[in-house]
Amino acid sequence: MTKVAFIGAGKIGQTIAFNVIMGGYVDEAIIYDIIPELPEKFEHELRHALASRKLKTEVLGTNNIDDVSGSDIVVITAGKPRKPGMSRRDLFVDNAKIMIDLADKIAKKNRGAIYIMVANPVDMMASVFMKYSGEYTISTGDQVETMRMRSYLAKKLKVPVYDINGYVGGEHGEDAVVLWSTVTVKGKPFTEEMGVSKSEVEDYVKKIPGEIIRVMGGTTWGPGTIIEEIVRAIALNENKVMSIAFPHKYEDEVIHVSEPVVVGKTIGPSLEPLLDEKDRWHLMASIKDFYSVYKENLKQLEESISAK
Amino acid sequence: MTKVAFIGAGKIGQTIAFNVIMGGYVDEAIIYDIIPELPEKFEHELRHALASRKLKTEVLGTNNIDDVSGSDIVVITAGKPRKPGMSRRDLFVDNAKIMIDLADKIAKKNRGAIYIMVANPVDMMASVFMKYSGEYTISTGDQVETMRMRSYLAKKLKVPVYDINGYVGGEHGEDAVVLWSTVTVKGKPFTEEMGVSKSEVEDYVKKIPGEIIRVMGGTTWGPGTIIEEIVRAIALNENKVMSIAFPHKYEDEVIHVSEPVVVGKTIGPSLEPLLDEKDRWHLMASIKDFYSVYKENLKQLEESISAK
Amino acid sequence: MTKVAFIGAGKIGQTIAFNVIMGGYVDEAIIYDIIPELPEKFEHELRHALASRKLKTEVLGTNNIDDVSGSDIVVITAGKPRKPGMSRRDLFVDNAKIMIDLADKIAKKNRGAIYIMVANPVDMMASVFMKYSGEYTISTGDQVETMRMRSYLAKKLKVPVYDINGYVGGEHGEDAVVLWSTVTVKGKPFTEEMGVSKSEVEDYVKKIPGEIIRVMGGTTWGPGTIIEEIVRAIALNENKVMSIAFPHKYEDEVIHVSEPVVVGKTIGPSLEPLLDEKDRWHLMASIKDFYSVYKENLKQLEESISAK
Amino acid sequence: MTKVAFIGAGKIGQTIAFNVIMGGYVDEAIIYDIIPELPEKFEHELRHALASRKLKTEVLGTNNIDDVSGSDIVVITAGKPRKPGMSRRDLFVDNAKIMIDLADKIAKKNRGAIYIMVANPVDMMASVFMKYSGEYTISTGDQVETMRMRSYLAKKLKVPVYDINGYVGGEHGEDAVVLWSTVTVKGKPFTEEMGVSKSEVEDYVKKIPGEIIRVMGGTTWGPGTIIEEIVRAIALNENKVMSIAFPHKYEDEVIHVSEPVVVGKTIGPSLEPLLDEKDRWHLMASIKDFYSVYKENLKQLEESISAK
Repeated sequence: MTKVAFIGAGKIGQTIAFNVIMGGYVDEAIIYDIIPELPEKFEHELRHALASRKLKTEVLGTNNIDDVSGSDIVVITAGKPRKPGMSRRDLFVDNAKIMIDLADKIAKKNRGAIYIMVANPVDMMASVFMKYSGEYTISTGDQVETMRMRSYLAKKLKVPVYDINGYVGGEHGEDAVVLWSTVTVKGKPFTEEMGVSKSEVEDYVKKIPGEIIRVMGGTTWGPGTIIEEIVRAIALNENKVMSIAFPHKYEDEVIHVSEPVVVGKTIGPSLEPLLDEKDRWHLMASIKDFYSVYKENLKQLEESISAK
Repeated sequence: MTKVAFIGAGKIGQTIAFNVIMGGYVDEAIIYDIIPELPEKFEHELRHALASRKLKTEVLGTNNIDDVSGSDIVVITAGKPRKPGMSRRDLFVDNAKIMIDLADKIAKKNRGAIYIMVANPVDMMASVFMKYSGEYTISTGDQVETMRMRSYLAKKLKVPVYDINGYVGGEHGEDAVVLWSTVTVKGKPFTEEMGVSKSEVEDYVKKIPGEIIRVMGGTTWGPGTIIEEIVRAIALNENKVMSIAFPHKYEDEVIHVSEPVVVGKTIGPSLEPLLDEKDRWHLMASIKDFYSVYKENLKQLEESISAK
Repeated sequence: MTKVAFIGAGKIGQTIAFNVIMGGYVDEAIIYDIIPELPEKFEHELRHALASRKLKTEVLGTNNIDDVSGSDIVVITAGKPRKPGMSRRDLFVDNAKIMIDLADKIAKKNRGAIYIMVANPVDMMASVFMKYSGEYTISTGDQVETMRMRSYLAKKLKVPVYDINGYVGGEHGEDAVVLWSTVTVKGKPFTEEMGVSKSEVEDYVKKIPGEIIRVMGGTTWGPGTIIEEIVRAIALNENKVMSIAFPHKYEDEVIHVSEPVVVGKTIGPSLEPLLDEKDRWHLMASIKDFYSVYKENLKQLEESISAK
Repeated sequence: MTKVAFIGAGKIGQTIAFNVIMGGYVDEAIIYDIIPELPEKFEHELRHALASRKLKTEVLGTNNIDDVSGSDIVVITAGKPRKPGMSRRDLFVDNAKIMIDLADKIAKKNRGAIYIMVANPVDMMASVFMKYSGEYTISTGDQVETMRMRSYLAKKLKVPVYDINGYVGGEHGEDAVVLWSTVTVKGKPFTEEMGVSKSEVEDYVKKIPGEIIRVMGGTTWGPGTIIEEIVRAIALNENKVMSIAFPHKYEDEVIHVSEPVVVGKTIGPSLEPLLDEKDRWHLMASIKDFYSVYKENLKQLEESISAK
């Protein structure tokens, strides 16, 4: 019996839930959202799709957070989007409050589950959720960037995408870095002489989400499919290497930064030994940066909470 | 080499294209839309998803209708939605003009393809497209209603959905009828003594799309998955029985009404012999109604065109 | 909960069971054979394979026929092979006795299941099993020949095999006939001008099994995969057209002859209306021949039984 | 374009080839065997199966070793089985000669492929093939034992098999050791208090292949499925952790011993850091033992060759 809960049924939450449920490897799925009727109507859509795919997965859409219990995996997409004029720190504070509230409500009814954070800023929200719930939490981190990098290289080099290997690491978002020492093409280490410059690839990875959001209003199909792969790897214990953000003990906090790591029922070990000096230095810098921003944000959060 | 074209990359068009392409059975996909940049950005999203699924399908997003050529299957979702205050006839006229334009532009470059109409009013648009293109066209018809009926019965009777068989037929939409003589539960003919009344099922099938649209803004996941199954059945020549609308010669026109029919590289035969008298009468009535409304609408269309 | 039983764990029985169980759509599988330890050791092999495929299907191998109960589908491969010097009638008598014994032992514990006969002579054994058990029985009939015909045409015409449609019908074995009026290539009716003669195709279908048996000792991979498709179509209610032998009431007996028919939780309707006069005549001749041989064989069987 | 060659079409070679080809991710497959007509008839069986699964994979069965060219992956099952009274060393010498011959014939036409050794003694044959061909070679090593260990624990502990993690390492066969520090149940480290003793598990892993061989004449379904997973991981670059034997430089030779390692287009890194002291010690002992036996065997081989 594998049970997966989805907290949040917005566009990305729906896309992940749809892909996971249609994957056929989950016995039971619960979809929670605060918007009245939304999870229940989404449940109907899923039932129609399941009928077509001949799957008997149990699905429940609910507005009652107490229905979320006994899950093996909890996928959290709930949270506010960043609005124009809003600082990253403000987004942190707003969504951290949501996470603290969720940690309070769902952790006790889903003890021992693996929590997968998707809400932004995704790595920090994972750290916040883990801090306040005490439950093992990961963030989808740079697995999405990893696939974007591979798809770009495949297209440029005119090879099937499964001929490209390699990972993007560090904090999800603009500071993510291509871990070039891991990148191979048909098993050979990447070099610019293959016909693509590193900066061109890095540019693509950095800019394409903004481009998609500008035209389509959000990124859904890419992340929705890629994050499903993370859920599947955990649910079926596939032990696949992915670049997700998992807990790192650093100074006095547990923080989340992405590096290639084995993903199954347990997460680890990291494939850091694969990396060359330069990539390791990048990762270490990411961790330090993350920590200092995270501490500032936590302070802000505490002030905001006590101000209430 | 199987090549599928998607005309229209709105919400439903995207969902169908995503499901078909991730199915892995198509070698090449072309996505066309009139909105600048949309197909191209959607192509990027699909590439990221394909990277994750390890698929090497060729995908092209384009604003140039001339890129749509050499397809085996063409899925048409382009068209206007029905707006408040708009009569069904007005919707017919508006979208029929789009179909005539598309017939002119794509038929000659995709000769011999099977055209699958999804734009509303879906059955009549199939008839219009076939009339003006001379190409074999089907409409997704009542396959969506069929799966809704089965999913409802499965839930009410607490059986896996693959224990339910049976079809909905007639014109897609409010006039679709459950073909009760085809409905079985675990291989036994349905009777109301099983614990569900026929009217309750009919009600669900009629009202659930409106409910979903009211809350979610549109139906996507259900139809997007179910219509993928139609594309797959044709692409792989699966010879599966589905309730889709295929061409019926009636009086002086070719019209489209749904009944259970074998779907593969060729469509047919119909399973009409399965039906009892009552269900056959319903189907015949549908055909007559369709014809008379269709003829009126065609007249309106011609007047509207010559008025220009 | 879908439960499938396999009666017989010889080469073909193993291949079918392996394919069905690895398909992932069955919740529980029972494998019975009379040979000591064989089903139990096969169970271990299957468990190792299931571990790799991440499937949790329950599997039981047993020498105790009473363990076979509560199944939805029963696949019968048990029976003697035809030995050199043995007449077809002798094979009938020997295997019919096995079927009568099985009918006695398993029918009462698996009421309402669909029984799929694979043991030879396959169509007559289906008739015998149904006669003595009173349970609905089909034979895998000419679905294997159907796929051989399509694969040959695909190779000769250099098209993907899913571009070929059409069926082989009549009694399984040397008297099976290609139903040419159903054969299409990329949706166009087959003609010899496409580059292959009908007699060449018929020859292949007739002779290839003997060729494979001569070199490989038996046909397994082809039938094992094709018969899995029949089990899947029933288990998941796929409503796919296949050429299997299903019960025909003829004179005073129920007999089994193959023609294209819709296969799901219920079997039917037949697609006979598709056939032209010539193909229909072939089918009718098959039925008559079958009946007269079957009656003679039954007489022989009764004499053999009463002689004991 | 992914092309896989299968050298050897005996029972295990057929089972691996069938599973790989039916997986649908290979564009072209070549099956070579020395037995006249066998590969060609197996090709027919595969074509019939492909027809049913709607796959268009190109398959060629051949007795001509020169047809094996341009492959991405080469799976070698060719070799003699160990006969009663035959020493392990004799088996080494006999099969090493076959490998040297194959290295000579196929390496030059399949440069840069990954060679997967399945013929026994599997790890040493991988070392021999790599030594004489200069091509990157792996052995399927202990991935089969790994799945046997997991399946046994799952059954005993009554949990789905994907709740068990962990690996078997060292030389394939009787000296393989369960790497207990890697074994987890639902993410928790294994302890005997869960209800199974370590020695019971070790016993099962050691004895079950002999039991299966005694009753069934060979192990096919388990290894055939598990080895397919290795081929898939490489072909699709899945980067999954498996316990296979990959090249280790040790003293003056490259030798093959299994430990958990990331498997994709490239093999590595090893997950040795995961292991505790005891498991590492076991692995190191395996490597030393392997080396000393291998060197003796090589000496014997050279004598046998020069004696000719």
